[in-house]
Order: sequence, then structure tokens, then C-alpha cells
Amino acid sequence: MTIHIALIHYPVYDRQEKVIATALTTIDIHDLARLARTYGVDRFYVVTPLRSQQELARRLIDHWVTGWGARYNPTRKEALSLVRMADDLEEVLTGIEQEEGRRAKTVATAARRYAKAHPYGEMAELIRKSGDEPYLILFGTGWGLTREMVEKSNYVLEPIEEKGYNHLSVRTAAGIILDRLLGGEVR
Amino acid sequence: MTIHIALIHYPVYDRQEKVIATALTTIDIHDLARLARTYGVDRFYVVTPLRSQQELARRLIDHWVTGWGARYNPTRKEALSLVRMADDLEEVLTGIEQEEGRRAKTVATAARRYAKAHPYGEMAELIRKSGDEPYLILFGTGWGLTREMVEKSNYVLEPIEEKGYNHLSVRTAAGIILDRLLGGEVR
Repeated sequence: MTIHIALIHYPVYDRQEKVIATALTTIDIHDLARLARTYGVDRFYVVTPLRSQQELARRLIDHWVTGWGARYNPTRKEALSLVRMADDLEEVLTGIEQEEGRRAKTVATAARRYAKAHPYGEMAELIRKSGDEPYLILFGTGWGLTREMVEKSNYVLEPIEEKGYNHLSVRTAAGIILDRLLGGEVR
Repeated sequence: MTIHIALIHYPVYDRQEKVIATALTTIDIHDLARLARTYGVDRFYVVTPLRSQQELARRLIDHWVTGWGARYNPTRKEALSLVRMADDLEEVLTGIEQEEGRRAKTVATAARRYAKAHPYGEMAELIRKSGDEPYLILFGTGWGLTREMVEKSNYVLEPIEEKGYNHLSVRTAAGIILDRLLGGEVR
């Protein structure tokens, strides 16, 4: 299989469940790129329709991939080389389909519990046994992916809520989720 | 058992393996506090000898625990209530000993591989079976905990290095490590 991840800046919820476009957080791009590289993720898509934000992300990536940062910190270059920009989810899916000849199965992540949510062990096994199926794991910013996006996904994962608290940062949650799905360590 | 975590700002390495004190990163305090709350960690110690940095952290914590932020975001208050400041590791250990009547076992984390490193499954079982033993998990900032601090620890964990890349942010790595040691999800 191939694994891709996407960090969605639109459409997501704000505190009041209004649908918004969030601003980029550069630290998220660094952290998720490093995470993607660690777990052998093929591409990390940053999804925002805002052109000024895409431009900002491109400048950041260029600095580390071809600019001065590439010499200063080659391991950061390795990570940020995996980042691609996209206007929306459909553009990501079309891009993967063009490269791999198949549409990716989408896996939504959510801090709230959905009825159709999959346990991690089940999802990890599904991925392991799926031949060369591409998967795209979706992470929300702000107050999370919209209900509509989650419902439209092929799969949705359970929230990470060990002691009744489901308010991790996307940087931390994404690490735990990829480790549970793709990590080699058996507990 | 009780679990504590510490984010060490001194002594840690810089790029050239010189021992330095790093600056606080406020996002680390937020992310690790939320992580601590998620996994039922008792206390999250921010360790720095620099008084101006301690003052900065206290202002941040007060804002969210007793100030305006507590009303704006009560879940952040729950998380940041777990944070304590300390000058050095010894102060943390003495504090835990005064509260719990036993000195905590220290568990170092490292991006490099130490000969005495423990696999996660083993360490998780040790913790589970240890009665009311307190544990203190140490996370380094900058380029990581000094060799001396790691060697002096009771335990050291293996690096998280799935595909030959061991350059995660401490925000992401700490999430994966606590999930492997304390997470309820069985893969």
C-alpha cells in the first residue's frame, strides 16, 4: 500500500461549529512532515483554498528543500520534500489517482466519536492486507473536520481519549495515530 | 503507580553537542500538558534554571488556569493545571519524594540508541506491574538529553525510528511514547 496524509484547513469547524478556513501553522507543517518521513508516508498534503497561505507554505518549503535551510539541516529537507499543496480534498484524490492509477481510500480522524468509527487494530490490519491500495489519512485543524467530510470518508477512526479527555493538538494526535496504524512496535 | 513527565531545558545538547539551556517553547507546554491530561499523568514538570523563563511559563500557566483563559477554554485549564516549574531534575525528584514518600524511577527518552535501552512493551509491563512506584519520564529539548543524564537514569527507552529517521519533534515523540507506555489500545 501507499500512505498519504492530509492536513485540512478548509472545511473545518471553529469553536461554535461554524465552517471556516483556518490559518496555516508553520510548526504543524514541520512536525507532520517529520512524522511522515518517520513512518514512510508517501506524501503530506497541506490543503487550503487560500492562495496567500499556499504561497506562505511554498516559501517555507523552498527554504528547507532548495534554499539555505537544506544545507543547514538536511534531515529537515528530507521531511519537507514530502509536502505538497492542494486547494481541496478532491485535488489531492485526483493527484493520487493520476500517479497511482487508483483512487485512495480516505480515513478520517476525529476527536468526537462516530458510530461507524473503526478501532485502530482493525484499521491497521486492513491497511496491511490491502495490497497496493492507496490510503489518505485526513487530519483536521481548528475544531476538527466537518461532519460531512467525516461521513463521506471511507473510514473514520476512534478518538484518542484515554482518560475522558480528547483535546490533543493535531501535532501530538497525528503522531499517536500513525504509530498505531503503521508503527512496527508491538505492545 | 503514578506517572510524571519532565521537559528538560537544561542540561541538553545543541547541534554541536555542546551543553546548553534551551529557551522555552510555549507550544510545547500546551501540547505536553494536553498530552499529560489525556494519559492520566500526575504532573508535568518544566525544568529550566533560568528565572526569566520560569517567570514566562508561570504567566502563561496563570492565564489559562486562573486568568481569562480559564473561562475561555476550560479544557486547557484542566491540562495546564498539571504543570509545575523546577530548577533542575533533583528538585523534581525531591518534590515527588516529599509528596509520595518514594523516589521516582527515571525513564530517559532519546533519539539515539543506547546499549541499555528498553523496548516499549517491556517498559510498559514494568510500569503496569510496579504497584505504587512513581515514574518520571524525561523528555529533552534542543538536540536531546545529555549522555550523562541518560546514563544516570534508571531506564532509557529505544528511539522512535521507524524508517531510519529519528528526527521527530518532542511534541510528536512524547505523544507516541506515552501512548506506547500507557495507552489502552492494543494492536
